[in-house]
Amino acid sequence: MIRVKIPATSANMGAGFDTLGMALKLYNEITIEETEGETEIKLLGGELDRNYRNNLTYISIIKVYEFFNKEFKGFKIDMSKTNIPLSRGLGSSAACIVGGIVGANALLNEKMTIKDMLKIAVDIEGHPDNVAPALLGGVIISIMDMENIIYSRINVKSQLKYAVMVPDFKVSTELSRKVLPNEYSREDALFNISRCSMLVSALNNGENEKLRYLFEDKIHQPYRKKLINNIDSIFLKAKEYGSLGEFISGSGSTLIAVLEEADENFILKMKTYLDSLKDGWRIFEVENDNNGAVII
Amino acid sequence: MIRVKIPATSANMGAGFDTLGMALKLYNEITIEETEGETEIKLLGGELDRNYRNNLTYISIIKVYEFFNKEFKGFKIDMSKTNIPLSRGLGSSAACIVGGIVGANALLNEKMTIKDMLKIAVDIEGHPDNVAPALLGGVIISIMDMENIIYSRINVKSQLKYAVMVPDFKVSTELSRKVLPNEYSREDALFNISRCSMLVSALNNGENEKLRYLFEDKIHQPYRKKLINNIDSIFLKAKEYGSLGEFISGSGSTLIAVLEEADENFILKMKTYLDSLKDGWRIFEVENDNNGAVII
Repeated sequence: MIRVKIPATSANMGAGFDTLGMALKLYNEITIEETEGETEIKLLGGELDRNYRNNLTYISIIKVYEFFNKEFKGFKIDMSKTNIPLSRGLGSSAACIVGGIVGANALLNEKMTIKDMLKIAVDIEGHPDNVAPALLGGVIISIMDMENIIYSRINVKSQLKYAVMVPDFKVSTELSRKVLPNEYSREDALFNISRCSMLVSALNNGENEKLRYLFEDKIHQPYRKKLINNIDSIFLKAKEYGSLGEFISGSGSTLIAVLEEADENFILKMKTYLDSLKDGWRIFEVENDNNGAVII
Repeated sequence: MIRVKIPATSANMGAGFDTLGMALKLYNEITIEETEGETEIKLLGGELDRNYRNNLTYISIIKVYEFFNKEFKGFKIDMSKTNIPLSRGLGSSAACIVGGIVGANALLNEKMTIKDMLKIAVDIEGHPDNVAPALLGGVIISIMDMENIIYSRINVKSQLKYAVMVPDFKVSTELSRKVLPNEYSREDALFNISRCSMLVSALNNGENEKLRYLFEDKIHQPYRKKLINNIDSIFLKAKEYGSLGEFISGSGSTLIAVLEEADENFILKMKTYLDSLKDGWRIFEVENDNNGAVII
């Protein structure tokens, strides 16, 4: 039996739409073993997945078995240990996929390259923004150039913390794509090119004083705001309470504020504010996971 | 008398339109002294600048004197020692401006901050892409956020070399702006956001094997190509001869190919090829200047 621990991930990070993603110290655990019988997948709360052939972890495991031309009958998969909120822009599906791939690879005692794992993960997920940091840990830039997936790790100098704010509503990924325009002005394109590039450099150099300018974005967030209740006032409060920058995690609904250091006060003050709103916002502080998915 | 040495600069670097710029070990020298008489500016070839009030170095000197509320009568300026080709996309005007500012600041024994110098330079030049690296050296990302100029230095890990190819024709900056569209597809915007960001990371990490993908651009070069004779075949040859990436320097007409190490062979082969074309292309190899403008 193999047990995999997979981090939550946050894609986009403001200016880095479809480009940046980071892993967070918030984990799901998945155990996988081969069985001679029918596949059985235990979900959160102990419920069984009756539609297991569509289960992302199952699909990912199968892909790895196929990659190595290995036969299989069934799997016993336990996905009941989850901390990553579902469908809130924190990479819960990327975790299912990466967990399946890393787990199956270990189960087969095989040494799949990172590149091949990433290829399978992207084939299933459609884009690398979440699966790359879920697999690799840290803050990752990724590009799809035709069939090639290219990634680079940002060596973040400062120990940044993230205040993660999760409401009780979801934002449909489909709708969050639909609200985006197809065309952008040259100015808006340049706005993001320059901010995202300087964000990479500022993270590398530990230039925290510049971050206030660098999570800003003209490509997706201005259009997605309307899908997230109170986002403007939440960002404003976070800034007032000392955050270095704020952004939508993935396509939401989770919001993230970036902190220079652990700040219990910030969390308490934001919690008080969030409690005054509807939508049952939760808030907690995490830092970057730097290991990615690991066998434990 | 003050003598300033100012590096050539190359803006854009492919994906980094209006964002990236780098200083090169190719210099102009300017000497400045105050006189009691009329200003006299010696240009290349010993000719005097009859229209000196429009001379960028003169204007820059005056701005520094005004900044410190210092009176002046005239200046004797020698700008005859130039190695930076004029109007070829190698920052010759940025060099005039930065030379004037750094020189005047030294002449007055003042200690202007980098920020203030950059502010004056950008006020004159209109954008920071060339003046920032001319002042600071190295590879610089710069942003104008309202009145704020923010910059970050990329700590380039590899000792890259640049094959600089200069034709005998100019490209007018005005025309090179005019050919650009006002609107870009989301895909094209994302293409550059991701490439430029990963370029920063790859330069930081010394990941030269990724550079082949990272100088590519969908914002300006596809539209400016038609202004530069034989650009496609020159880039193709450079790639064939082992360059890591190719781009238009600034808005042209100079082209640059990036090399992993000093490669006399590359230069010789490209020279043979360029000699077979019209337009009197010259080629030489330089590396990054990391000091910016200095008093010598």
